[in-house]
Amino acid sequence: MKTAARSQDVADLAKVSQSAVSRTFTPGASVSEETRRKVLAAAKKLGYRPNALARSLITRRSHIVALVMSYLENQFYPLALEKMSQKFQKEGYHVLMFIAEMDEDADAILAEILEYQVDGIVMASANLSPRLARTCADLGVPVVQFNRVSDPRRRSQNTLSSITSDNYSGGQMAANLLVDRGYRRIAFLAGLDNSSTSLERERGFTDALAARNVPLARREAGHYDFKLASEATRRLFTAGRAPDALFVANDHMAIAALDVLRSELGLHSPGHVGVIGFDDVPQAAWGAYQLTTVRQDLEQMIGSTVALVCEQVTGEVRPTNIVIPCALIERATVRSAD
Amino acid sequence: MKTAARSQDVADLAKVSQSAVSRTFTPGASVSEETRRKVLAAAKKLGYRPNALARSLITRRSHIVALVMSYLENQFYPLALEKMSQKFQKEGYHVLMFIAEMDEDADAILAEILEYQVDGIVMASANLSPRLARTCADLGVPVVQFNRVSDPRRRSQNTLSSITSDNYSGGQMAANLLVDRGYRRIAFLAGLDNSSTSLERERGFTDALAARNVPLARREAGHYDFKLASEATRRLFTAGRAPDALFVANDHMAIAALDVLRSELGLHSPGHVGVIGFDDVPQAAWGAYQLTTVRQDLEQMIGSTVALVCEQVTGEVRPTNIVIPCALIERATVRSAD
Repeated sequence: MKTAARSQDVADLAKVSQSAVSRTFTPGASVSEETRRKVLAAAKKLGYRPNALARSLITRRSHIVALVMSYLENQFYPLALEKMSQKFQKEGYHVLMFIAEMDEDADAILAEILEYQVDGIVMASANLSPRLARTCADLGVPVVQFNRVSDPRRRSQNTLSSITSDNYSGGQMAANLLVDRGYRRIAFLAGLDNSSTSLERERGFTDALAARNVPLARREAGHYDFKLASEATRRLFTAGRAPDALFVANDHMAIAALDVLRSELGLHSPGHVGVIGFDDVPQAAWGAYQLTTVRQDLEQMIGSTVALVCEQVTGEVRPTNIVIPCALIERATVRSAD
Repeated sequence: MKTAARSQDVADLAKVSQSAVSRTFTPGASVSEETRRKVLAAAKKLGYRPNALARSLITRRSHIVALVMSYLENQFYPLALEKMSQKFQKEGYHVLMFIAEMDEDADAILAEILEYQVDGIVMASANLSPRLARTCADLGVPVVQFNRVSDPRRRSQNTLSSITSDNYSGGQMAANLLVDRGYRRIAFLAGLDNSSTSLERERGFTDALAARNVPLARREAGHYDFKLASEATRRLFTAGRAPDALFVANDHMAIAALDVLRSELGLHSPGHVGVIGFDDVPQAAWGAYQLTTVRQDLEQMIGSTVALVCEQVTGEVRPTNIVIPCALIERATVRSAD
């Protein structure tokens, strides 16, 4: 294997000091135009660059964390990406993007991810099979699922780490608020059937309804997609007896539902229909929506994710599942207490 | 410098064939559990990983493109990021994220970017000084500005490549539509004063108004920020004589303006105020807004960006400025022709 050029090689070829090479690549450092030109010409010739990756072959660190993401239409994810990138950046890492199909497993791209010699992997809305999860652990590469968990009811047996909200409690909060405010024909608009977020929110929601002796009136799936959520809302409110309240598995779909209710069907919220979303994306607070929702604590989710990855890059890789409380945010789409 | 472990080293230590090492790291390939365990134990011991980056020290290619971005609240950028990541992924590159302050120059982080030995740099809503742009060119690293240009009126003298919409023409389209539809007290809500997008849209807008003998009635700046745009809208419509139309430098701020007009001030659009945005983000089509806007052709912008970077990674790096036409999208916030 050919060895990469070092700064001394560049200095020798350019006939300058090693310090001049260093200053050429330091923004703001003083270096004459002539020296700069000589250094850059030598650097180009030798293929030299100030090079963390060459060092990484010695230290076994690339300072790269792979982020597998699939779902940037829902504003929750771009904000998560921005905050996660910033936070990793502060810790000396940068995020390398891998776009996957939503909630499909990432086995097919794992080899490619590992080729970049990443120090860790964060999977947002993507899964990894137990076998490949074990491969990563054996290689000392921590993998953290963000906003997903392989099996929420068997966290102790999971092979991957995860950071999730307490989606089950969030679902319970939504059910109790709707029953407290007098709604009785209550429907659920689900996300993806293989996503832990939708499954847990639904389980908490229906358990709490059952505890209050209110049956779930209707259920449709919007698959976390804006258009499919619009169609599901049309089905719920034009065929059969319409619900008087709707819990939607995320805000992105709840906004689609509100648009259909108001613009197409002439129904008002909270008057005709109470609506609750999940996430508290910025759009939920926009004047035209003022959506009542269950807030995920994005700051804490990101903080925990970055801390867990950083800890396991230098320490032992073992599955750790962190669950973060969420909170009810009341705005205008559920009628207020009398 | 210590040489990285090769697959043969792993095979020797694990006492298996090199093919068994290869199969262990190929998803779906057949390998016995015992062999797999042996290979992974040896790989861990040697710090071996199937390693594109070790190869990159020979080929001088990392297959990494740095993306400098700052502004993921405006949905235009997450969608650009998603499509750009996908497109680079298809070409065998992955995007490494660098989060910068909005429209500040990226000089301070360039050294860090180059340490990752990136093959190219895309700057979205960020700038680079001419001096550091020259450094990148001298090193053979192409830099492309996405949705920004250093000086739109002197494209031929720019030191960086750029991909932009024809923002000037877009501004003209907005002005002509408003005048055609009978609006006469027309205001502009600007973005950032140092961003080429806002400057060019404004220049096209005011030039076209002047050509139609309609003076610009008012101007306020929202700095591409949701809250600041809300405040600017309040100033425009509560102090002095209110405008009857508003051209907003992007959709993100136009939505803030519509919320203030309707929810706070009880003004209807298009009845009391005609509103035009810029970008055509998904939210512009949402039922509650139905915003008339100037569409940026995101697909073509991304396609041109990726093609330009890929071309210059293997070929010569020289400043290339590509301008892509935009299109008026009429929805419900400008009154229709009689």
